[in-house]
Amino acid sequence: MRLFGILGDPIDAVRSPDFYNAEFARRGLDAVFLPLLVRAEDLAMAWRGLTHVANFDGLVLTMPHKRAVVPLLDEIGPTARLTDAVNTARRLPDGRWEGEMFDGEGFLGGLRAAGHDPAGRTVLLVGAGGAGRAIAFALAGAGVLALDIADADGGSASSLANAIGGAFPDCTTRAVDPDPGPHSVVVNATPMGMRANDPLPFDTARLAAGTVVADVVPNPEVTPLLAAARDRGCPIVTGQQMFEAQAALAMGFLGLAEPR
Amino acid sequence: MRLFGILGDPIDAVRSPDFYNAEFARRGLDAVFLPLLVRAEDLAMAWRGLTHVANFDGLVLTMPHKRAVVPLLDEIGPTARLTDAVNTARRLPDGRWEGEMFDGEGFLGGLRAAGHDPAGRTVLLVGAGGAGRAIAFALAGAGVLALDIADADGGSASSLANAIGGAFPDCTTRAVDPDPGPHSVVVNATPMGMRANDPLPFDTARLAAGTVVADVVPNPEVTPLLAAARDRGCPIVTGQQMFEAQAALAMGFLGLAEPR
Repeated sequence: MRLFGILGDPIDAVRSPDFYNAEFARRGLDAVFLPLLVRAEDLAMAWRGLTHVANFDGLVLTMPHKRAVVPLLDEIGPTARLTDAVNTARRLPDGRWEGEMFDGEGFLGGLRAAGHDPAGRTVLLVGAGGAGRAIAFALAGAGVLALDIADADGGSASSLANAIGGAFPDCTTRAVDPDPGPHSVVVNATPMGMRANDPLPFDTARLAAGTVVADVVPNPEVTPLLAAARDRGCPIVTGQQMFEAQAALAMGFLGLAEPR
Repeated sequence: MRLFGILGDPIDAVRSPDFYNAEFARRGLDAVFLPLLVRAEDLAMAWRGLTHVANFDGLVLTMPHKRAVVPLLDEIGPTARLTDAVNTARRLPDGRWEGEMFDGEGFLGGLRAAGHDPAGRTVLLVGAGGAGRAIAFALAGAGVLALDIADADGGSASSLANAIGGAFPDCTTRAVDPDPGPHSVVVNATPMGMRANDPLPFDTARLAAGTVVADVVPNPEVTPLLAAARDRGCPIVTGQQMFEAQAALAMGFLGLAEPR
């Protein structure tokens, strides 16, 4: 039996196990995808252990591990190198482990599947963690005109804005407060919304009608932020749409693409 | 989801995943039991890693890990201490891990379920590894008159005979060649019989009719040794019978006993 899993804390709300296990069942694969509850301080030890179980063939990372896992990998792919974050890792034929980051391309896939091309737009990104970094690089690569980045840790926002500015000189980037007013696309890349009593990641009263609001939180499918945005007449893109596009890319990387 | 697994090499033929998962399904538990392929040289790293995944609640050990895992545990139970081997480990409420050994009691359970009481008998035990040690202590504790122990590594056989002699002075023990002739119970506690082209663990032409022949190998259910013994008119006890008695004890230790 081939084993796969997702490492995170919390782990109860993640969608990957149901998604992958339904695929495995549909295709008759002798494989299982597990939710693996790993605390931040236990990542290095858990990682080394899981990668020494010879039938673990792939591991997916979610909060809070996407950046912390990078130094534990033997190889990292080009997007992981750019973003300094990894969301999917695979065992190579020689036993070493390679990681790559699909959150950014997955986000773009969800945005485009919902009918929104980010090229030429002004975007506010709230959250400069692992997912936020991946989304920022993907948006800049997709040709957004201006990218404003907000994070409770202002240093993270500035550092990400500088990195984007260095890699994509045509994209105007800066660290800002999370004010959605002047943007045509607003993205929540923080975990706020996973728990019922989380505050909203920004003041939705400042949203202009017509601003596209996207949320990386996949569960609940319509987060309180997306519900408030929809009430104001804003088009929304769910974390579930991003998740499905991301998972399709990750499955290909894990050697689980559907045979044609 | 609660995670359980069995560590071994090879792992394909183990029965525990099907047994436990059928129990979990029957009882509607949100839990899964996994086959974990761990090489001997990777045990320490895999062990530390798996025990740092917070929803792994129990781990079962099979070849070649039953003795090697002992120094990795925080606590060991009385039978594990006696046999210096562990087949089942659980996470304690404070996060430490405790191991215990149920192979010996499981073996006795299978033997008794098949109608054979070992008290007062003369027994040949072939194989002085983790399972063999556990069975030796259990047989001595159950009152066998004489216990002859054979192992390809004569030192292991002598060392186990000495340990039994020290703990159970009323049981006559010695290291011997594997000749079943003069015994009323013969036990295979080696892995021979797991693979189709394995040699038999001893010369079945020397078996007396009426000698009870027991095998720890659970798969195939009737091993070549048991088939040969049955052809000679010997009563047999299968590894599956031992496995079921052992697994019932291990499930209780893991907190998975059926509610009454």
